[in-house]
Amino acid sequence: MTEDEIVAAIRAIVEYEPDGSRHRRNSRVYLGIGDDAALWQPSRSHRSAISTDMLVEGVHFTRSTMSLEDAGWRAMAANLSDLAAMGARPVLATVALGVPRAAAFDELVSLYRGLAAAAKHGRVDIVGGDLTAGDVLTVAITVVGEVRRSNALTRSGGRPGDVLAVTGPLGAARAGLAVASAQASLESPLADAALDAFRRPQARLAEGRFLGANAAVRAMIDCSDGLSTDLHRLCAASGCGAELESVPVADAAAAVAREQGEQAERFALAGGEDFELLVAVRERAFPHVAARYAARFGKELLRVGVLRSEAGVLWGGQALARTGWDHFSAG
Amino acid sequence: MTEDEIVAAIRAIVEYEPDGSRHRRNSRVYLGIGDDAALWQPSRSHRSAISTDMLVEGVHFTRSTMSLEDAGWRAMAANLSDLAAMGARPVLATVALGVPRAAAFDELVSLYRGLAAAAKHGRVDIVGGDLTAGDVLTVAITVVGEVRRSNALTRSGGRPGDVLAVTGPLGAARAGLAVASAQASLESPLADAALDAFRRPQARLAEGRFLGANAAVRAMIDCSDGLSTDLHRLCAASGCGAELESVPVADAAAAVAREQGEQAERFALAGGEDFELLVAVRERAFPHVAARYAARFGKELLRVGVLRSEAGVLWGGQALARTGWDHFSAG
Repeated sequence: MTEDEIVAAIRAIVEYEPDGSRHRRNSRVYLGIGDDAALWQPSRSHRSAISTDMLVEGVHFTRSTMSLEDAGWRAMAANLSDLAAMGARPVLATVALGVPRAAAFDELVSLYRGLAAAAKHGRVDIVGGDLTAGDVLTVAITVVGEVRRSNALTRSGGRPGDVLAVTGPLGAARAGLAVASAQASLESPLADAALDAFRRPQARLAEGRFLGANAAVRAMIDCSDGLSTDLHRLCAASGCGAELESVPVADAAAAVAREQGEQAERFALAGGEDFELLVAVRERAFPHVAARYAARFGKELLRVGVLRSEAGVLWGGQALARTGWDHFSAG
Repeated sequence: MTEDEIVAAIRAIVEYEPDGSRHRRNSRVYLGIGDDAALWQPSRSHRSAISTDMLVEGVHFTRSTMSLEDAGWRAMAANLSDLAAMGARPVLATVALGVPRAAAFDELVSLYRGLAAAAKHGRVDIVGGDLTAGDVLTVAITVVGEVRRSNALTRSGGRPGDVLAVTGPLGAARAGLAVASAQASLESPLADAALDAFRRPQARLAEGRFLGANAAVRAMIDCSDGLSTDLHRLCAASGCGAELESVPVADAAAAVAREQGEQAERFALAGGEDFELLVAVRERAFPHVAARYAARFGKELLRVGVLRSEAGVLWGGQALARTGWDHFSAG
């Protein structure tokens, strides 16, 4: 295969739907794959947001626990999650691939199918990229989104007294890893839920936009590195500490923890790769925000604690280390 | 070093000038490194342009011929060149780094110094990135720029009869590689010119914007893969063929070719990594465009040939293969 043949195959995956119909590109994208750069018309009333992530085979994914198509999906979802955490709507993405010379064409196509499926699911157009030789399969994605100036949420807006909440229970992705690597043996449907969370995670784009549009929500971050690490980051950026009151654990994670004789919360605090969002909400407004969230999404906005003025994160009266994982290992 | 310590060091390089003063960020960038995404206010009157490139140690650069600081500069310059080729002005960049676990902190700092120096030189702000473990040092850069709708130039606007021209002589980067790897032994100042072209290449941003703003310039591409390959690309996108009349060779490249007993044009046609721009200009307007270019930049817009309606690229009456290199090897 020449580079041009590979690019042609990639274009076909990006520009057509699986059923053979032509993919309808965002009407503001004027020039996609194939030139020195892609062109689009940004919204006049919004700010633009950009984020980038690199995933490396053997570090971020292994073929023993997920297909390359899953790896592609997960890579794109992780990037979209960063836009979700700003309250932004995705517009476009670029994909740079480093590919071992020994890689088969089919492997590249599988990876790209997953990337394109997640992109279409998140309504983001892949408009360009790069393809290069490398020792290890490497995927670097950049996503661009848009958010109304008043709706953009950073990590730094939290204030002491704010209620901390997450958009869903945590730990399922880590449970999925345990199932995929045969370290746990859940029954369906729990096993399916765990594997789905691990292999086909969902960026919380609608939730992020909904929360960003609510003035009582003051800070937001995604839980991609585990609740403990990401809560510490939100606290550091907001100049606060926090007290964790409860840690909502996904059913699949609780089941795996039971099987392995582990503390279930460990999966949520240290698991990572969950794409739920963590928000800080003005205390008085929290019941109202939570009620509106439940009405809109048919699920609970789960209260996990409060921000406090003293530095550090407490859980059960004890200091929680930045990486929940290290904390547990040391304990 | 923890990841947070590395990020802090990188922030310091990006946010301060070498003299210790604070770097003045583009006033439209509202949020830089440190959150889930960066935010900026795009121009209301322009289109946005995006391009991405991945460079891998051992494939795109080796430490035996350039420092990591040079590699960083070159990586950023290559990306800026893609914006130059659209006629766009750079606004911001993101940088994702894959770093071997054994890499020293100083190596990362060197690489980032080069990235930041090229970014400041091109007036583009590094607003975010990612840092991950990997087997091989890998740099994936995404740049975003802006261009007035009427000034954006693609590869596809060329028409039969258009004059083909380049913004400067070619082959110097390849001559620099020969000097750096001790395959050639030029005297100064030719040696310095060659090494500079190889290690500290200049994206032709001002030239690209100037040419993009001229309605007689109908297509543009950068010569980063060698004049032969990039001319074939412009022809394919424009639905034309071309006749090459002359190939302007940089003095350093001519000297190395002489020393090695090679044809000098080979360095220009197949060398690559030159960031000069190749344009197709309406025939009648070419003298006027060239005169204005010379007046503005104090150098010639060098005519290299014409587009023609028949497919294929001719040079000296013979078909020129897509990769000038292969052509020469076969010959």
